[in-house]
Amino acid sequence: MKKNNETISVFALGGLGEIGKNMYVIKSDKEIIIIDAGVMFPEDELLGIDYVIQDVSYLKENEKLIKGLFITHGHEDHIGGIPFLLQNVNIPKIYASKVANDLIVKKLVDRNIRYDNLEIINEDSKIKLKTMEVEFIRTSHSIPESMAIAVHTSEGIIIQTGDFKFDLTPIGPMSDIHKMARLGEKGVKLLMSDSTNSLSEGFSKSESSVDETINDIFDEYSTRRIILATFASNIYRIKHIVETCRTHGRKVVIYGRSMENSKEIALNNGLIKDKTIFIEANEAKSLKKQEVCILCTGSQGEPLAALSRMAEGTHKQITLMPDDVVVFSSSPIPGNKASVNRVINKLYLKGIKVVTNSSAPDIHTSGHAMQDEQKLMLRLFKPEYFMPIHGEYRMLKKHKESAISCGVKKENIFILKNGESIELSGGVIKRGKDYPAGDIYVDGSRIGGVGSVVLKDRKLMSKDGILVAIINLDIKNKTLLLHPNVTTRGFVLVNENTDLILSISKKIESICKKYLQKNKYSYLDFKNQIILDLNPYILELTGRRPIILPVVMELNK
Amino acid sequence: MKKNNETISVFALGGLGEIGKNMYVIKSDKEIIIIDAGVMFPEDELLGIDYVIQDVSYLKENEKLIKGLFITHGHEDHIGGIPFLLQNVNIPKIYASKVANDLIVKKLVDRNIRYDNLEIINEDSKIKLKTMEVEFIRTSHSIPESMAIAVHTSEGIIIQTGDFKFDLTPIGPMSDIHKMARLGEKGVKLLMSDSTNSLSEGFSKSESSVDETINDIFDEYSTRRIILATFASNIYRIKHIVETCRTHGRKVVIYGRSMENSKEIALNNGLIKDKTIFIEANEAKSLKKQEVCILCTGSQGEPLAALSRMAEGTHKQITLMPDDVVVFSSSPIPGNKASVNRVINKLYLKGIKVVTNSSAPDIHTSGHAMQDEQKLMLRLFKPEYFMPIHGEYRMLKKHKESAISCGVKKENIFILKNGESIELSGGVIKRGKDYPAGDIYVDGSRIGGVGSVVLKDRKLMSKDGILVAIINLDIKNKTLLLHPNVTTRGFVLVNENTDLILSISKKIESICKKYLQKNKYSYLDFKNQIILDLNPYILELTGRRPIILPVVMELNK
Repeated sequence: MKKNNETISVFALGGLGEIGKNMYVIKSDKEIIIIDAGVMFPEDELLGIDYVIQDVSYLKENEKLIKGLFITHGHEDHIGGIPFLLQNVNIPKIYASKVANDLIVKKLVDRNIRYDNLEIINEDSKIKLKTMEVEFIRTSHSIPESMAIAVHTSEGIIIQTGDFKFDLTPIGPMSDIHKMARLGEKGVKLLMSDSTNSLSEGFSKSESSVDETINDIFDEYSTRRIILATFASNIYRIKHIVETCRTHGRKVVIYGRSMENSKEIALNNGLIKDKTIFIEANEAKSLKKQEVCILCTGSQGEPLAALSRMAEGTHKQITLMPDDVVVFSSSPIPGNKASVNRVINKLYLKGIKVVTNSSAPDIHTSGHAMQDEQKLMLRLFKPEYFMPIHGEYRMLKKHKESAISCGVKKENIFILKNGESIELSGGVIKRGKDYPAGDIYVDGSRIGGVGSVVLKDRKLMSKDGILVAIINLDIKNKTLLLHPNVTTRGFVLVNENTDLILSISKKIESICKKYLQKNKYSYLDFKNQIILDLNPYILELTGRRPIILPVVMELNK
Repeated sequence: MKKNNETISVFALGGLGEIGKNMYVIKSDKEIIIIDAGVMFPEDELLGIDYVIQDVSYLKENEKLIKGLFITHGHEDHIGGIPFLLQNVNIPKIYASKVANDLIVKKLVDRNIRYDNLEIINEDSKIKLKTMEVEFIRTSHSIPESMAIAVHTSEGIIIQTGDFKFDLTPIGPMSDIHKMARLGEKGVKLLMSDSTNSLSEGFSKSESSVDETINDIFDEYSTRRIILATFASNIYRIKHIVETCRTHGRKVVIYGRSMENSKEIALNNGLIKDKTIFIEANEAKSLKKQEVCILCTGSQGEPLAALSRMAEGTHKQITLMPDDVVVFSSSPIPGNKASVNRVINKLYLKGIKVVTNSSAPDIHTSGHAMQDEQKLMLRLFKPEYFMPIHGEYRMLKKHKESAISCGVKKENIFILKNGESIELSGGVIKRGKDYPAGDIYVDGSRIGGVGSVVLKDRKLMSKDGILVAIINLDIKNKTLLLHPNVTTRGFVLVNENTDLILSISKKIESICKKYLQKNKYSYLDFKNQIILDLNPYILELTGRRPIILPVVMELNK
């Protein structure tokens, strides 16, 4: 692209300092392109929250500059935010590879969102915009058709790797190291690279080694029924599991909605060719146990997933037997360790043989580059500037160290927070202005309905419970009609603490009387006063801080 | 290069089925180029043999076609055979990088060989011949300026990797992965790649991690004298040891001739810039122990090397103290394990702290690619045909498996022996004719003086000992003047076996008499007859086969 005296701004609306809700923005004077629109699945402390997404108010305000959303791959933390984004911002086009495209279409159909501007790209596509040109580079990751994105700007080439690893013996095609090397030789101004596994030394194992391990397990348990749980989105994994089933004379029964989706996508995209290997649950009944493999969701111990229900004994169609073998071809994502262990314990209680990545380390491999792979990426692109992305602060920091060891100047590396920007101008990159970026919590399908205040309440509630005080107020005479009624949840055992509840009730009554004597009555003010005065009283009495929820019934007698 | 209906032959005169004496030949109809001329250091079973080199009779016979010897790097197994080659074959030119060149010059001067056709090449050099063109690709290895060699022929590009690893954070420059990728995209017909470490899974550690470990050791033993032994040829290692000395306020005293050479080469080539860091042994006496680091040879337990003599207490200048710390920045080459352990035991007996790669694994790293690095090389060049080189059969075989997993067709992979060839013609590679290739044993500086017969004797001798029979023959009367005298070494304990020796002596006497009665006397014939008849007799008596050495004193009384 020609020099233009332009300023190119780069910032993230999500994905920095966190794992999830990836969204990166590259902006020239006339155009904005967005890379990815993911969700983040909340940790346990975000109670009752289904997703966290980006604050896209900046995009809304600059809607007219937006040229398109470019998707690196079809994982939820890269595409899960699309329905919410489309409901809020006009996105003229979404560019995604076929597999990612299929997953997006499914997602939009499920949510009844009509969108006609999806364009399928592949590694040879070039999207020419007014001031920028976008091309794609094949990478390896735990979902097919992952892409790094190269944006040619008037200030040089910007690379965003997406999620990647270097698998030298992948199940699918190899990363396009030659294209990477070619762009590297051309000169890369800025590399933004995946930091997820930057705390892990070395080179990640190949998907082929997982293939071998699965094959060994099928050999070892050739006379038993095998139930195998894995990440539904790892379609290559599913492909080689299915192929192992074929060579071992087993049919495959699929359980779990996302696993069904993946099967469909694998068949539609020619990744799995023979659909007769799949049978329905009722067909499985006529087969011997060693002729069946159940492939299901639930490798993360998700309570409602197929495997969890089988372990619980609440699955409608499958009853596990002591002779069964359950294989977790996965490793628990940090937050899910406890729930996975719960499922494993239940399986052990039933006397079932369980194979996990603790007993068979090669049963799973990460989809993310470890340190040596991150270094290889740095060496291939040899960027002038570097910005570690996708990861918590300590991961970004470690990735910075790797970049320094690979020859990037320390002062040319930027560790940013969401919303913080860098600006490319006159061949130099400097810190730029900040953009609004925050967490938006999604509860069910509402957006923003749950703000951070409510969330804080939910957190407190989970700790010390809730106390509801019902006050029947004669609004005319400013007197209480009844003694305040006190109800609690998760605070104290009411049966054993009638005295406590009684004294709280009395305290509320005195607070109310005091307020009503001294003040001009205002509903909100009255409620706040109750909370304000009751709080220290309860804290002193019980050492706890339940959420206090006064419900004032204004009655006109 | 233009198509020519040529046949390009490729074969090894050394380096296949073994580690060492590398020599590869690429031959078009009109030209021969040779890659490397190394020696092999014999294993223990080649008793008294100093080197093993290639049989170069084919080269001698086709001397006129030879255009040059191209050197990949300056290790002995790649350049050590040059003096012997030059003495036997007219080599019009030797092309080598500066460091390798310096080592070759040193070698030739030491042996009083005058040779004026050395040409220094670098990674940008291109050597145009009549039908071929040779260029060089920078690699990482345990000696600076290692090169892979690309030969452009009328039948396509042939790559010979030399010894290599992929060090993503090397002490020197990075492997030129971009040039590799560029050639890979152009299309590589045949890749010949280093198999030395193909039995090791994963990716080898970086030289930088060794650097960190050495630094930690210097921190830990900051008050003690440090004696550090490493491979003299690993000049980058020496460079970072020297730099660690500087940052820790230590001067460096060098012991060992090859270490002195490396110091000279490092200084001459700007790899180490400040020569004042080096001091002489006598200067060290005025310094405190924590101000000195002794850098010496002997990391392989070589009996005459500096460290071994220090451990033995026979070093003229250095007496080890219990407070000293001895660091082996090395790992024992398989054949040297016993001798290294001998040295370590002697050091322990003196109460000295010893640090080896067992106690500190990161104190050394291999210079050879492990499986993942070999795969990366295969992926970068994506050759149509593959020939694993440098290694024993099982290593070549494992490397073949890696090549298959990286997409090279099984039928396009050739595991050859020294002398076996492949021929490229019409775009296809097939097995070709065999060339003479054998081991030539070098004892001291004589070539071929020790043939394989003598060697077999030495081997037998080491197993069952030797028996010398001294026969005093009156040559005129054809009678024995005395009873034969029998002396043995390593056969039986003479004191305890006087009867045995006596009966052997009697047997010899009867053999002699029988011969002298029946035959016309001939010296050689007589000796052979003694051996022939005595052998089965001794075998039956003792179960052993000592070497029988009859010494016939022909006396004219």
